[in-house]
Amino acid sequence: MVATRTQAPDSPKILIVGGVAGGASAAARARRVNEHARIIMFERDPYVSFANCGLPYFIGGEIADRAQLLIATPELFRDRFLIDARIRHEVIAIHRATKRVMVKNLDTGEQYGEDYDKLILSPGAAPIVPPIPGATAQGVFSLRNIGDMDRIIAGMTHAKEAVVIGAGYIGLEAAEQFVHRGLKVTVVELQDQVMPFFDREIAEPLHRESERNGVRLELGRGVAAIEETNGAVTGVTLADGTRLSADLVLMSIGVRPNVALAVDAGLTIGASGGIATDAYMRTSDPDIYAVGDAAEYAFGPTGARLRVPLAGIANRTGRLAGEHAATGASRPAPAAWSTSVVRVFGYAAGIAGLSLRAARQAGFDARAVHIVSYHHASYYPGAAPIGIKLVYETGSGRVLGAQVVGAAGVDKRLDVVATLIHFKGTIEDLGELDLAYAPPFGSAKDPLHMAAFVAQNDLDGLAPLIQPDADLSAFQVVDVREAGELEELPLCDAPHAKHIRLDDLRDRLGELDPALPTVVSCRGGQRAYAAVRILAQHGFAQVYNLSGAAAMRDFALNRRSGAEPATHVDLPRPEHLVDDA
Amino acid sequence: MVATRTQAPDSPKILIVGGVAGGASAAARARRVNEHARIIMFERDPYVSFANCGLPYFIGGEIADRAQLLIATPELFRDRFLIDARIRHEVIAIHRATKRVMVKNLDTGEQYGEDYDKLILSPGAAPIVPPIPGATAQGVFSLRNIGDMDRIIAGMTHAKEAVVIGAGYIGLEAAEQFVHRGLKVTVVELQDQVMPFFDREIAEPLHRESERNGVRLELGRGVAAIEETNGAVTGVTLADGTRLSADLVLMSIGVRPNVALAVDAGLTIGASGGIATDAYMRTSDPDIYAVGDAAEYAFGPTGARLRVPLAGIANRTGRLAGEHAATGASRPAPAAWSTSVVRVFGYAAGIAGLSLRAARQAGFDARAVHIVSYHHASYYPGAAPIGIKLVYETGSGRVLGAQVVGAAGVDKRLDVVATLIHFKGTIEDLGELDLAYAPPFGSAKDPLHMAAFVAQNDLDGLAPLIQPDADLSAFQVVDVREAGELEELPLCDAPHAKHIRLDDLRDRLGELDPALPTVVSCRGGQRAYAAVRILAQHGFAQVYNLSGAAAMRDFALNRRSGAEPATHVDLPRPEHLVDDA
Repeated sequence: MVATRTQAPDSPKILIVGGVAGGASAAARARRVNEHARIIMFERDPYVSFANCGLPYFIGGEIADRAQLLIATPELFRDRFLIDARIRHEVIAIHRATKRVMVKNLDTGEQYGEDYDKLILSPGAAPIVPPIPGATAQGVFSLRNIGDMDRIIAGMTHAKEAVVIGAGYIGLEAAEQFVHRGLKVTVVELQDQVMPFFDREIAEPLHRESERNGVRLELGRGVAAIEETNGAVTGVTLADGTRLSADLVLMSIGVRPNVALAVDAGLTIGASGGIATDAYMRTSDPDIYAVGDAAEYAFGPTGARLRVPLAGIANRTGRLAGEHAATGASRPAPAAWSTSVVRVFGYAAGIAGLSLRAARQAGFDARAVHIVSYHHASYYPGAAPIGIKLVYETGSGRVLGAQVVGAAGVDKRLDVVATLIHFKGTIEDLGELDLAYAPPFGSAKDPLHMAAFVAQNDLDGLAPLIQPDADLSAFQVVDVREAGELEELPLCDAPHAKHIRLDDLRDRLGELDPALPTVVSCRGGQRAYAAVRILAQHGFAQVYNLSGAAAMRDFALNRRSGAEPATHVDLPRPEHLVDDA
Repeated sequence: MVATRTQAPDSPKILIVGGVAGGASAAARARRVNEHARIIMFERDPYVSFANCGLPYFIGGEIADRAQLLIATPELFRDRFLIDARIRHEVIAIHRATKRVMVKNLDTGEQYGEDYDKLILSPGAAPIVPPIPGATAQGVFSLRNIGDMDRIIAGMTHAKEAVVIGAGYIGLEAAEQFVHRGLKVTVVELQDQVMPFFDREIAEPLHRESERNGVRLELGRGVAAIEETNGAVTGVTLADGTRLSADLVLMSIGVRPNVALAVDAGLTIGASGGIATDAYMRTSDPDIYAVGDAAEYAFGPTGARLRVPLAGIANRTGRLAGEHAATGASRPAPAAWSTSVVRVFGYAAGIAGLSLRAARQAGFDARAVHIVSYHHASYYPGAAPIGIKLVYETGSGRVLGAQVVGAAGVDKRLDVVATLIHFKGTIEDLGELDLAYAPPFGSAKDPLHMAAFVAQNDLDGLAPLIQPDADLSAFQVVDVREAGELEELPLCDAPHAKHIRLDDLRDRLGELDPALPTVVSCRGGQRAYAAVRILAQHGFAQVYNLSGAAAMRDFALNRRSGAEPATHVDLPRPEHLVDDA
């Protein structure tokens, strides 16, 4: 339990390259565990520590006070931590043989050497700028640091039309904030969905939510060039020739790790392109550590070494690297599970662990369950529908990941699954969790319980699932909804579906052929489950429940919370419901 | 993973005593797994299934539509599930030798026998009415079912002053709703705090929040009598003679399990007073199951068999008992961890696992950490302070429980800890969790991470904690806050504290005696931690951090979210902070 603290040099000299999440955490922890270490932190930027995740919100005005983004000054580091924080200083070379770095003062141009006992690299990553014409025109921005933010804000002053290239976290967050500032916004994404690492059906509600708020989406589109006139951006030309006018362009297609310093020093770069690290965040040189966006982490779901450019893991491993450098020992670094969440106007969406696509690519025999339910008791005012896609392994029932989307309660379900997968928990564990329940907060059977139950029924063979993207043409399809529901939301992928309402099914079994493979659907999957059980016990040999049924599509169509909640699940009734799983 | 399904009688006859959470879940699951079973459910009340957790909210008008509370009708059970649901039918005797129950039709008085193969008892619990004068006066109510609710609403028509006796979940929820209806409300509680199974410092913010909303609290007071005039309640006399005038009294001092039927049938009653059960919720008679408020469960933190009168576990085990009865097999019942949450006006508070008091009573060598932090990034608008008390075992670091209180994000942290303790996770696991982070949802270092780090520092000996209720008179106490903070919130339990601001500490070490046991305090514990580390590394042999420091008290004083967040933690700065743990 307790980390063994082997004897370290009483006062190692620790140099840290880069402030912000990883570096500043390392510096503070190093001081706390070793009062006598000498600690110097170098940061190229004028800000030694700032809230980079807050930048989009200041652009949009949600965060009004710029000072809130600026965290710690060199004076604070000095007075409180005896840390020598040198801003506008760049480490330009590492001489491992002599354990010395070369530093350049960016204000004076002066260069000097600084010896180290331990060196912690937290160089971060840089936005990728694609090699297309016009990429450097005035009015084309990236968003990574305070300087970028200030430039964008200055650029917004007279801007009317923004094009955001890349629909990941930064792209979507920035697009929303540009809308808040009154800009006409188009988001261009090469993949045919936003948040490309989500499974598509989880991204679709974000499409509708973005469009509902006036964002134009150009999905599955590449960018050919950025148009400029007199050096200033005037538009974006897509690969298919479409021209979008624009006076502000944000490049948000991803980041590349800042590994040049490590490469030049001969440190091993991993297969993912990040600096290779061991269990204590040491690089191939045991006196040099690497953390943050440029480092590789053990990726929890697979054990692979991957880059994980997210704030949480940078903070937590920075802390451990600082301790290890300062004392010679620390707990091992945790695995990164890539848990993340993004807010898109009134919706949140996120992932813990693997998507179904990623799980299959990683070689798992993976299956998925789709649930649309309410974020708290349906009878309590304000219940908002949330969609959950739970991914699990066929044989073991191990939960591999979850994706959640909705107007409320999304982060909570992600965190529960993130905790569960930390322990390599199964769908059985998920179904057993004793979660906090009162009507304003949840349901006695939480949507996560329901997802677990449906997954158990799938693996047990009680009600095997078929995925919503399956080709249903070879199946006998039965839609067990009420007549009115069919009109409201046709089961469009199966025009040959036979309609037999659930409560009539036992009386109309003769109309179906028990020898045919059969798929049953309803709105949310609950009535279909009952129907699957009836059919299976009346001699139908192969009968499947359509996972998510019509509800996922309904949800994607974005009939939002509050407005017409009753349409989102089978029956608008409390959770002590009889038609559970 | 997959439950073994041994061959059960093809069509067992299953009787279920009691609807609502446990019984209705059992009935529906039994049908789903066994289309051919005969299933009869008996319910004394006119409602076979209703949302009992929603009753207070309908009283207060938050839930406006009474139909929302009424879930399933006997017709639905019949049409969809082929379940014979008999309302206003009470099972009055069980003849185990002949596997037959006696049933009374409460409308006609008729009695009849009904045979069973399997019998599931879900008889629930009844409000405790203390044996005091006036307890049956008109205007004295309990709140357990729809009938109670309707009576209270009728009784409210002309009521002006309500006294709520008992400050548990129902009492606090009802008190709030009475306030919403314009009543003057007093809550009387025998213990000296509301929510008596919370540790006191977690209950205190609820005291202030209740009082802030006009509720008068009479804590540590017993009730001697209920006064009545012409049979109608006019007031409540406390044990110390205080008289509270009242025209409506709610008794909410707890429930007692309805075990008479089980006792009469000779079934074993456990030490907790509930019906003894095995891993499959079978009673001492293997053909009879018990679930819900009258049954005993394996209590997760200790393994003891306890009653756990909460909705979640009733639902989940009802489902399993129904399956086991219908097929002869099911997954074993999950442990109950007693996770629960209550909303009190603008605050929520809850517990997962054990309080420190309960952990020590259960024989654990337990310690606790107190954290006051923000529910999401402090720089993002709307950050609300939350208080967390994390309880863990000294040797192993196993997390035994957590209590959380605050205006937002409380249920999420409870659910994360509930998931962690399901796996018997440690403070190390908690610190490693990869939780979903974006500024509107959390912090890169979540308050739970911070709690884990502080606990690790405690167990590692880096910064041992002393509990906030400790007697500080024998210690050298150092308060390292800024001068202005001391005036704002004196460290009242240690008037002899010496004030040395953190940033001056290294220069003023000579003013302190390193031979004395020393306690350091600040507002939130973070600066004190830095100071502890400085002192420990400068020859102070015994130096402790005051857990929660002044912040818990500040929080208890209820300086609420939004108004002055800056006062609630050490420094109002973003979470990429240098002064982490």
